[in-house]
Amino acid sequence: MAERPPKLRLFVAADLTAGASVGLDAAQAHYLGTVMRARKGDALALFNGRDGEWRAAIDGFGKGWCSVAVGERLRPQTAEPDLWLVFAPIKRARIDFVAEKATELGVSALWPIFTRHTAVGRVNVERLRANAVEAAEQCERLTVPEIVAPATLDEVLADWPAGRALLVLDESGAGAPAADALADLPPGPAAVLTGPEGGFAKSELDGLRALPFVTHIGLGPRILRADTAALAALACWQAWCGDWRARPALR
Amino acid sequence: MAERPPKLRLFVAADLTAGASVGLDAAQAHYLGTVMRARKGDALALFNGRDGEWRAAIDGFGKGWCSVAVGERLRPQTAEPDLWLVFAPIKRARIDFVAEKATELGVSALWPIFTRHTAVGRVNVERLRANAVEAAEQCERLTVPEIVAPATLDEVLADWPAGRALLVLDESGAGAPAADALADLPPGPAAVLTGPEGGFAKSELDGLRALPFVTHIGLGPRILRADTAALAALACWQAWCGDWRARPALR
Repeated sequence: MAERPPKLRLFVAADLTAGASVGLDAAQAHYLGTVMRARKGDALALFNGRDGEWRAAIDGFGKGWCSVAVGERLRPQTAEPDLWLVFAPIKRARIDFVAEKATELGVSALWPIFTRHTAVGRVNVERLRANAVEAAEQCERLTVPEIVAPATLDEVLADWPAGRALLVLDESGAGAPAADALADLPPGPAAVLTGPEGGFAKSELDGLRALPFVTHIGLGPRILRADTAALAALACWQAWCGDWRARPALR
Repeated sequence: MAERPPKLRLFVAADLTAGASVGLDAAQAHYLGTVMRARKGDALALFNGRDGEWRAAIDGFGKGWCSVAVGERLRPQTAEPDLWLVFAPIKRARIDFVAEKATELGVSALWPIFTRHTAVGRVNVERLRANAVEAAEQCERLTVPEIVAPATLDEVLADWPAGRALLVLDESGAGAPAADALADLPPGPAAVLTGPEGGFAKSELDGLRALPFVTHIGLGPRILRADTAALAALACWQAWCGDWRARPALR
């Protein structure tokens, strides 16, 4: 296909096959019709996290709905790196930002957790998901990160899956430099864990250090905000252990 | 010194020596007295980018001023990595964010530039500087990044300093993977160059490719926003070529 892929790109729940008709929800219909001023016949791309990416065309608009005809497949579904971000929630603007950036940086799951010094009492999971969907649509991912139900650090660690490395961002100065820790990491699923603005409690760091799947890493001499540290670590992991040797698919 | 360093930390222009008296400006006096509710005798840390970091104590407040007595030196000035961020300006909230994050990630200079597809017509240099100062105060840096006067990409390239590598973040898929490019980079000063939301023009990329100090790098298969790409590249450079083998000084 020499044609450029459509610029409009939406995540949908429906199965995608050639010739299918997909009904979009009210929010997506509003986005297409009112925000993007799309019209009947306009092209868009659809993905659902399972069936790859498909060319589609707007079939019709109504009040609160939009119907789309699925055309041919643009890209097959492919395996993606398995990297979680497990993070103590921070202020709302910063959590929006983390959801957007972590999605662009290819995390497979976002998991808000509560630690001893976490000041934020609840997490708007729907908002987290909406930010992740929007970022996935924009960055040409074929999936949306899973949003895992918030839990305490103790609960997360008690049920940690076998074979997944946990990289703890440790401001205490006791962590290995990121470059060394990532070079030594065996291939396989991983997770980055970031603490709240007040940092981890000493007892939490000591408890983490005793766990066989944990590596403590340091991100240099400056004290990074929690959101900066999370994104820096995700970028380094993708560059050295993830899929950053691949190129954009549609260019 | 077993004492913990003061939590209040300010960047000042004045020379810092033991026994000196430093006058703070109205904004800093307001921050200390009203925002942070500091009182006469309270401890703070001062740095000026030249003389290291010093313990100080508030000597007195007045209307629009605050006087501070400099005590002993906490840290000597040390050399820092020489990494510029040369970036096409983006929307205001995102540029604030880039200034904050790039400062935490240790850039020595922030240089806004205009490219062919740059949609933003002017840059608020004072605001850029204020964000950089605030981030430097928070992240325990001993310097504030230099804010370089905006210029066009052509002007920047025509006067490029000898010996400084230029890493161009290239969405076209033609760049080397970041891990490989950074492993091959000779030690020395460097700069990361990011384009506007619309990307570089093809002629710009071709022109850059012809320059001996340029390396084109790719950041994987997802299409990153300009701000995400900048921060990801800065983090990778610090981890592999910069000072991320060092630990926080004051912990």
